[in-house]
Amino acid sequence: MKLTLASLITLLIACYPVKINNQNDNAKTPVAIVIHGGAGTILKANMTPEKEEQYRASLKQALQKGYAVLEKGGTSVEAVLAAITVLEDDPLFNAGKGAVFTYYGEVELDASIMDGSNLQAGAVAGAKTIRNPILAAHAVMTKSPHVMLAGSGAEEFARLQNLAIVPQSYFIDSARYEQHFRRKKAREATPSKHGTVGAVALDRFGNIAAGTSTGGMMDKRWGRIGDSPVIGAGTWAQNKTCGISSTGWGEYFIRLGVAHDISAMMEYGGLSLQEAADSVIMKKLTRLGGTGGVIGLDQQSNITMTFNTAGMYRGYVREGEESRVFLFGRDEEE
Amino acid sequence: MKLTLASLITLLIACYPVKINNQNDNAKTPVAIVIHGGAGTILKANMTPEKEEQYRASLKQALQKGYAVLEKGGTSVEAVLAAITVLEDDPLFNAGKGAVFTYYGEVELDASIMDGSNLQAGAVAGAKTIRNPILAAHAVMTKSPHVMLAGSGAEEFARLQNLAIVPQSYFIDSARYEQHFRRKKAREATPSKHGTVGAVALDRFGNIAAGTSTGGMMDKRWGRIGDSPVIGAGTWAQNKTCGISSTGWGEYFIRLGVAHDISAMMEYGGLSLQEAADSVIMKKLTRLGGTGGVIGLDQQSNITMTFNTAGMYRGYVREGEESRVFLFGRDEEE
Repeated sequence: MKLTLASLITLLIACYPVKINNQNDNAKTPVAIVIHGGAGTILKANMTPEKEEQYRASLKQALQKGYAVLEKGGTSVEAVLAAITVLEDDPLFNAGKGAVFTYYGEVELDASIMDGSNLQAGAVAGAKTIRNPILAAHAVMTKSPHVMLAGSGAEEFARLQNLAIVPQSYFIDSARYEQHFRRKKAREATPSKHGTVGAVALDRFGNIAAGTSTGGMMDKRWGRIGDSPVIGAGTWAQNKTCGISSTGWGEYFIRLGVAHDISAMMEYGGLSLQEAADSVIMKKLTRLGGTGGVIGLDQQSNITMTFNTAGMYRGYVREGEESRVFLFGRDEEE
Repeated sequence: MKLTLASLITLLIACYPVKINNQNDNAKTPVAIVIHGGAGTILKANMTPEKEEQYRASLKQALQKGYAVLEKGGTSVEAVLAAITVLEDDPLFNAGKGAVFTYYGEVELDASIMDGSNLQAGAVAGAKTIRNPILAAHAVMTKSPHVMLAGSGAEEFARLQNLAIVPQSYFIDSARYEQHFRRKKAREATPSKHGTVGAVALDRFGNIAAGTSTGGMMDKRWGRIGDSPVIGAGTWAQNKTCGISSTGWGEYFIRLGVAHDISAMMEYGGLSLQEAADSVIMKKLTRLGGTGGVIGLDQQSNITMTFNTAGMYRGYVREGEESRVFLFGRDEEE
């Protein structure tokens, strides 16, 4: 047989694997959303069936709200806002209502959002009176020339944008309050880090958006800012690579630029989303001594939920599939 | 002539350019430091010879202070601190003394530092009373479990670390003050962005460090935080790739994660420092509509000073070479 160029090309096409990973090659990209509610020592042994059910129900509700936006042809940015506000309003999570207390007994909230279609981004840090910090981050992105606003200035801006302003008492969840004073008494060394929330969505237009919201590290002091409002660390979105939202020990996520690093490994190193997330979370972060995880998705609706902790509150819906939520490590979830 | 493998290799070696760019292949890496004092519409036509001389003298002094540390076997972190404190103390630059005013007529200072040998990092944002914000960023890196502190909390931390605390009046340079009120009157639309300072150093141990300090955007409001205290945007250091300090329109630098992106293009894409800086500043940043520049160096003492503005206050010293400082674009410097 004479090997012509045409036959060689045919041969190459025939040999190419039909289905790689969970990549979807349909012309019409299925919309998708993935969320997290924090990573940490989340073990079945430490949780009642009732508590477990509450977490699963809350994650499902956030997924439904976000997915409903996408299904109706809404944007990924709108879907991220819809999902995160559900989690911010739920005292189960360390974001918005139910946020942890600082060293001073206050609540200081951080949030950020990024639009992967144009690399626009917005963030607020150290906000004490904004009911839904993710909406303030969105207002910074769309209604200001800035990306990051902090402290009372961020609150002033949110007021000017007619966002809901609440007293500190709004955020206080009695369980967190009790935890705060128990901890004060016990002088525990390592702050608990569960409950940051985040969402990444892919809409009908093929645009990816990502957002993150948190009350930060328990007992934080000196105006500490973690990775959640830091674009490139806690949040990143770029259509041609992926959207990422991080949760965990924020200092390590900043030092590795986790969210942008995953994107860069895909863009410059040719890795898949899952390979890049594994490399950054399971190798780099773990080697450095950091703990936590990320959620992410790419333009082909591939999804990652990768963490080096015992568990991570998480879930996703992809068009044409049932929504799925998980709390624990793979071996504890069947 | 028969082409043997040996002769082919000899031929390839002979053809290989002897000196590529400014790469140095000596066994002993020469120590080096590169600094900037901001990028912007810096044109010879707008400057008196006296002013020009002041800038050159100040940049040279900062280089000398930083280089002296390296020559004596000090660390790159110490060299970065030495160079940046000179520029912070000089009212010519928009950092420390002489910083621009916010919308409210105050000074709000941001700074960050990163140690490329261990990816440790520190930053302060929105500080109003810390004389040398770069020293506070260093204290955050070395004396706290955190990476980023903001506002009055950062000031409280600096006080606890016995750093110099000064009243706002210390920072007021009469020229800036006049400029502020002239601008208030004129309601100028585009804030001037000159004068952020930064330094990147390579020490005898082969370790790279980078730091950045700024008063931020003129007339900034709502607690706006730019790229300077954002690790990955304004500052990045990683021994195996490079150290970077950014200056320019901060929002664009955050949206591109400029400092980390240059490092990632080297790490995953195999680009040289100069190729990566060109790609990010001259292509990506320019396409997005952002203005500014970066300084950087790698472990082989290659240096970049890349900007898409008319000029950038900048300079470097490399062991065995004279120190060099520049203010304007290449065509205006001989």
